[in-house]
Parts: sequence; C-alpha cells; structure tokens
Amino acid sequence: MRLTPATELEYRCSTLQKYMIEASIDAVIIIQNADLFYFTGTIQSGNLYIPAQGQPLYMVRKDWGRARMESGLRDVVPFRSMKDIPGVLADHGYAVPQRIGFELDVLPVNFFDRYRQVFSEAEYVDATPLIRKVRMIKSHYEIHLMQDAADQVDKVYRRVHEVLRVGMTDLDLAAELEFIARKNGHQGLVRMRGFNSELLFGHVFSGTDSAVPSYSDTPLGGLGCTPSFGQGAGLKRIEANEPLIVDFAGCVDGYLVDQTRVFAIGGLSERLCKGYDDMLKVQERMKELVQPGTPWGVVYDECLSLAERMGYADAFMGGSGSQVSFIGHGLGIEIDEYPFIARGFHSMTLEVGMAFAFEPKLVFPGEGAVGIENTFYISNEGLKQLTHSNEKISILMP
Amino acid sequence: MRLTPATELEYRCSTLQKYMIEASIDAVIIIQNADLFYFTGTIQSGNLYIPAQGQPLYMVRKDWGRARMESGLRDVVPFRSMKDIPGVLADHGYAVPQRIGFELDVLPVNFFDRYRQVFSEAEYVDATPLIRKVRMIKSHYEIHLMQDAADQVDKVYRRVHEVLRVGMTDLDLAAELEFIARKNGHQGLVRMRGFNSELLFGHVFSGTDSAVPSYSDTPLGGLGCTPSFGQGAGLKRIEANEPLIVDFAGCVDGYLVDQTRVFAIGGLSERLCKGYDDMLKVQERMKELVQPGTPWGVVYDECLSLAERMGYADAFMGGSGSQVSFIGHGLGIEIDEYPFIARGFHSMTLEVGMAFAFEPKLVFPGEGAVGIENTFYISNEGLKQLTHSNEKISILMP
Repeated sequence: MRLTPATELEYRCSTLQKYMIEASIDAVIIIQNADLFYFTGTIQSGNLYIPAQGQPLYMVRKDWGRARMESGLRDVVPFRSMKDIPGVLADHGYAVPQRIGFELDVLPVNFFDRYRQVFSEAEYVDATPLIRKVRMIKSHYEIHLMQDAADQVDKVYRRVHEVLRVGMTDLDLAAELEFIARKNGHQGLVRMRGFNSELLFGHVFSGTDSAVPSYSDTPLGGLGCTPSFGQGAGLKRIEANEPLIVDFAGCVDGYLVDQTRVFAIGGLSERLCKGYDDMLKVQERMKELVQPGTPWGVVYDECLSLAERMGYADAFMGGSGSQVSFIGHGLGIEIDEYPFIARGFHSMTLEVGMAFAFEPKLVFPGEGAVGIENTFYISNEGLKQLTHSNEKISILMP
Repeated sequence: MRLTPATELEYRCSTLQKYMIEASIDAVIIIQNADLFYFTGTIQSGNLYIPAQGQPLYMVRKDWGRARMESGLRDVVPFRSMKDIPGVLADHGYAVPQRIGFELDVLPVNFFDRYRQVFSEAEYVDATPLIRKVRMIKSHYEIHLMQDAADQVDKVYRRVHEVLRVGMTDLDLAAELEFIARKNGHQGLVRMRGFNSELLFGHVFSGTDSAVPSYSDTPLGGLGCTPSFGQGAGLKRIEANEPLIVDFAGCVDGYLVDQTRVFAIGGLSERLCKGYDDMLKVQERMKELVQPGTPWGVVYDECLSLAERMGYADAFMGGSGSQVSFIGHGLGIEIDEYPFIARGFHSMTLEVGMAFAFEPKLVFPGEGAVGIENTFYISNEGLKQLTHSNEKISILMP
C-alpha cells in the first residue's frame, strides 16, 4: 500500500492551476472520489478547493484524521456543512471566487444546487475537461503502479490455465479469477466516470454468450447472471471448441490496466483464428500510428478502415447494430479517461505520458467473440506496452 | 435468473402515476439503472417515459433487442439521440409535457442540461422522492428475492467457519467470502444511490481495523487495502481473541439483504461480549417499536436513547467523532432506500411492505467493533426477519 507522494500532488495541482489561469477560472471545487484521490491522495469525504494561485485547501467532513494521515497536502481542515465553506475559505485568506469550476459531468443536479446557494453570486463552468487534461498525462509514479497492476492481471491470466474446465459456468470461472485478483490486492472496485456506467472486474464469457450485446458502452457485453446487471459472466457452461474471453482490469493502489486474452479448450474454427490474427494486425497498425502529435481520431479512423478492408465492417467492435465508436480508451484511476481512441476526436493529439487500452475485437453472433486488449504508455522512447501476458490464443487440452 | 413479471411492472407504474397526479407532474423520465430495473425489469440504456396517465414508453438506445426480451413493458422502442425524444413521444400520441420529473439526486448537471434543451419550455421537478415512495413498499415477489438473498448470505456466513484461521488477512477472508457469494449467483455489484457512495460486497475486518473510521456513511469503516478505496478489508492479519466483523450484502436477481455477524478465534473480552449482548437488546427494542404508523425517527430516537442509557454515547454507531446519524436503512435494489431509521425523520411513518436493515453497532477504538445487523420486513402479520444466520457470537477454536 502506497501513499501518494506530496511532490506528485504538488505537480498535479500546479498543472491544473496552469489550465485554470488559461480558462480564467478562479477556483475549482473537487468532490468526486476519483478526482479527490488524484489531487489529495485519499478519498475522505470533503471538498478540495483549488485556487488559481496558491495552496489547495482540503476541507474534510469524514474522516479528518484519516485525511491528514493519507494526504500529502499541507492544508487539511475539518468542516461540517457546505454552508460553512465561504467562512472556512475566508479564515484561510482566500478571496471570494467569481468564476468556479465544478465536475459538472458527475455532480448531481441537487448537489450542484446547494453549491449555487453557497456561492450565489458566482459564475459556474465545467472543470472536468481541464481535470481530464491533467489526469491524462501519467507520471513515472503512476506508470509504476500500472506496471504492478499489469503483473496482477498476468496472475489472473495464468490462473485461467489452472482452473478452466469444460462444464464450469462463465460465472464459476469469473469467481475464481476475481478471487485471485483480490488475493493479490485488487481493491475490487473498478471506477468508471460515465453516468450509469458500471463494471465489475471485467468480462469473462464464452461462446455465444461472448457475442451477446449489452447496455454497457463496450464492444462485448455478455448476458450477466441477472437482467439487473446484464453484462459479463452468466450461467452459460463452457464447452470445448468455443472462444473464451477474459477481459480483466487489474488494479493496484487505485490504478488500473485492462487486458483481454482468448482461450479455448480443444481449438477454434478457422474463421475465429483468422479473426484473432487480424485483430493482432490492427494492434500492429495502431503501434505504427501512435506517436506524439497524432490525433486520437486518426488512430481510430485508420484502424477501423483496416478492419473494414479485412472484411469486418459488421463484426468490428460489436455485433451488427451494437457496434461502439471507439477502439481504445485512456485509463488510470478510472477506466474511461482521456485519450479516447474514438470516432471524431481529431482536434486532440497523443502526447508523451498518455496511457491507454487498445482493444480491437470481433463479434460473430451465434458463434462468439475474439480479440485482444493491451494497455500501452507513450514514453519518451516511444510506445511501451504495460500488459504482458502471452498474446497467442491459449489452446488448452480437453 | 428471474424476469420481473409484467404485472409487477404495471403495479409499480400505476403507483407512481398516482403520486404524480397528486404532485401535478405530467411525466417522469427515468434513466438511472436502479430505477430502470425497478420500472422496466432491465437496465438496457435508454429513457423510460412515464406519463401521468396511460402506458409507459421505454425508448432504448442499447440494446433494444435485449430490452424487448427482458422487459415486460408493452411499448419498447428504439431511439438514437436525446433530441429524438419529442418526435418519438409525438409518434406515440403523447402530449408535450409541461411539468417533468427527473431523478435530480443522481442526474449529473451536464446530462440534465441536455434534457433542458430538448424540453426547453418545461418546468422541472425532482421525481426521486416519489420514486423512493413507490420503491419502499415491497411486493411479495420482491420479498421472495430478498429471502433468496438471505439464504445466499447465510452460505457466506457458514463459509467463515470453514476458512477462518489465525494469520490470514482480512482481505484473504473477504476474497474467500466474495468467492462463495459469486458462486451462489451474487451479481458482484452492490448498488448505492448516494453520490460518491461506493461499496463492495460489504465489510470484513478484525480487531483494531474494525474500529477505523472511513469516508463512507457507515457506522464501521475499515482501512481497506489502499487509500484509493479506504474502506472494508485491508491487510491486517487476523489474531486470536479479537472481534471479526462480517458485514455482508447478499444479492439475488438484483435484490439485496444486509447482515452482520461477529466471530472470534478463542474468545472476546467481557466488554465486547457485553457490548454485543447490549446491541441485541437494542435490536429487541426496535422490534417492540416497529409497527405501521411509527415514525422512522422515533425508532431511531428510542434506540439511540437506550444505547446512551447503557453507557454507549461515545461508541454507538461509530467511534467518537465519526458517529453516523442512523441505525437502519431501507434496502432492495439499492442499499440506501427508504425508510431511513435515522435522526430527524419524524414526518414519515413505517408501513406494511417496508424492508429495512437494522444495525446497532459499537466501536471501541484500539480494540475493535461489535454489533449485529439483520434485514427485516413489515408484513401484514407484523415484523418478519429475513436474514437468519445464528445470532450468537461465533467462537471458533484457535
């Protein structure tokens, strides 16, 4: 268990402040857990007040003692009620902010209305695009955590070889893999920022179930074990000669990596094997395209175009009618961070320090899905791959 | 795996419509997963439009085919974009709503702004209090699901007896119990409605770690395995002669129960044993108080008063400085539903059909926590207890 170094927090805060000044924002108030963890090193309940210039002030409702222990910030103070905020700010010498940034993509309406009463004269802007811009560039410290998460997910991958048997359900296998992840320190929670977005450790499903679309914004969906959470592993029994997808998010000290591998007991049809090899080619194409300065959308367009030329217009990134408009996604504390390797993102470019998962996948309804996913990092020396499990389809004996 | 019967959906919808007419609301638009599941039987991504009179219309973005299979609603139609909503409504003969209810406690600001553009002439109200009122009265169907969840959590409880050993970490034990829950169909996700509220299967922690407060709005917190998710099981090794808390939420077909039991290897101090027995007395006091017509806050006040008279003013429902202002909470699809057995709720009364967890607990910093939690249901024949694991402290041999 690591505590985020104070120097990390200082750098993150000063980077946000640079963007705030460019956007003429006087102060940003951060309350969402993922952002709190990034800027304070903890998620103790409270408000992090970041002025455009000067020290951040972390006002903590519960638990203040823990916040002081876990956060490297200098100013961590107790507070009780939202309406105390202006007084606490004045006590610490902060001017009344005129233009305040909030996390408007996640902040519920009722919650926001209470802030509007507290700062009734202020103008409000969405701070999330700025926060996303700071968070999308990973430090060496963050990459080290993600390397540990890659080792964890490799243990999960290796466990599949030990426990996979014909006749077990997808849910049985998922339970085994989640167990290994937890034993290796996975926090259990995989954070997604999008409203209504939910994800367990990942998706483990076989054969026809791997081709079932779901409500989630993912290329593969899965039936799940109940319509109340209709994604991921369900009660289908694993058979020989069908694809088994293990799409699993490792998580160490709050940082995620995402990896997908395909297994089969016996073997797979020529169509699926060829499809898998072709997805490896899409991954190779991505590696050629990715460099600082490349627009996110160009990587998407070029890789989609390759998949279409290979004959997968109706199967790439989801079954026909359920295809998603991305092939990759940034990740770190949340699994849906910048950059988005997605349709339309032509004005934002790849930069050194970005980490992203890339997941070219094919869905053949009635047969199953194949594909690969790895987590990458753009270093000063070029693209580095963080997840490192064997990339061949794992064929197990029946 | 059950599909919600259409008759259930019809009754739920008509009950909401009754409240809508009382509140002069023309239409409610439901999008949050828990509410979607309750009113449609699935969570496929979309908008459920409920007019004050007439049939609900479920407009589904992804995946429409699954929504048609999983939902017992009559009108399930595909749609692509929020701005198509007025056209789809007109096509189905609905008048333009003047006063619309949204789930304003969970709907993010940016999302809401897009609805305001679509319905630019309308007035907006918070529909969540009405939705909560409908959801707080459970049907027999819902109680049956919760009975199954109670059986599941009893299996988890029994598993503790098989695997608990001196020297294993709290996280090791949590992983074992989560494994059993998943093998028995637990969906993995425990839904909480509150913003920033997060919960894994529950809280498993021992000795001093069980007395660590956290950011979560729960009587016990726990250190967790990382400050990025600082609650629940951490890396502390379980020793003899200290309390082990297993607070676990069972979940079957989307419905939750909540149960807490105390274990110890060897034995426990007289103070902890007496504290536990006293919490059983608080539970008995609750049973005397609960009947249709009793205000929620009266149950809270009377039980708090009893705990204070027994000398636990500083230990009841959290350690000094971290005490929460509730002793029980409604539950069903989410773990924070109506009724709240909490401070101040004097205008709302208990009714037949309500289900709630009641969890009197004591925290002794530096030593550990003890307490009990069960899930109850107010039937026509009085209070029934759903969770049924043995209520004695489980003392295991070293």
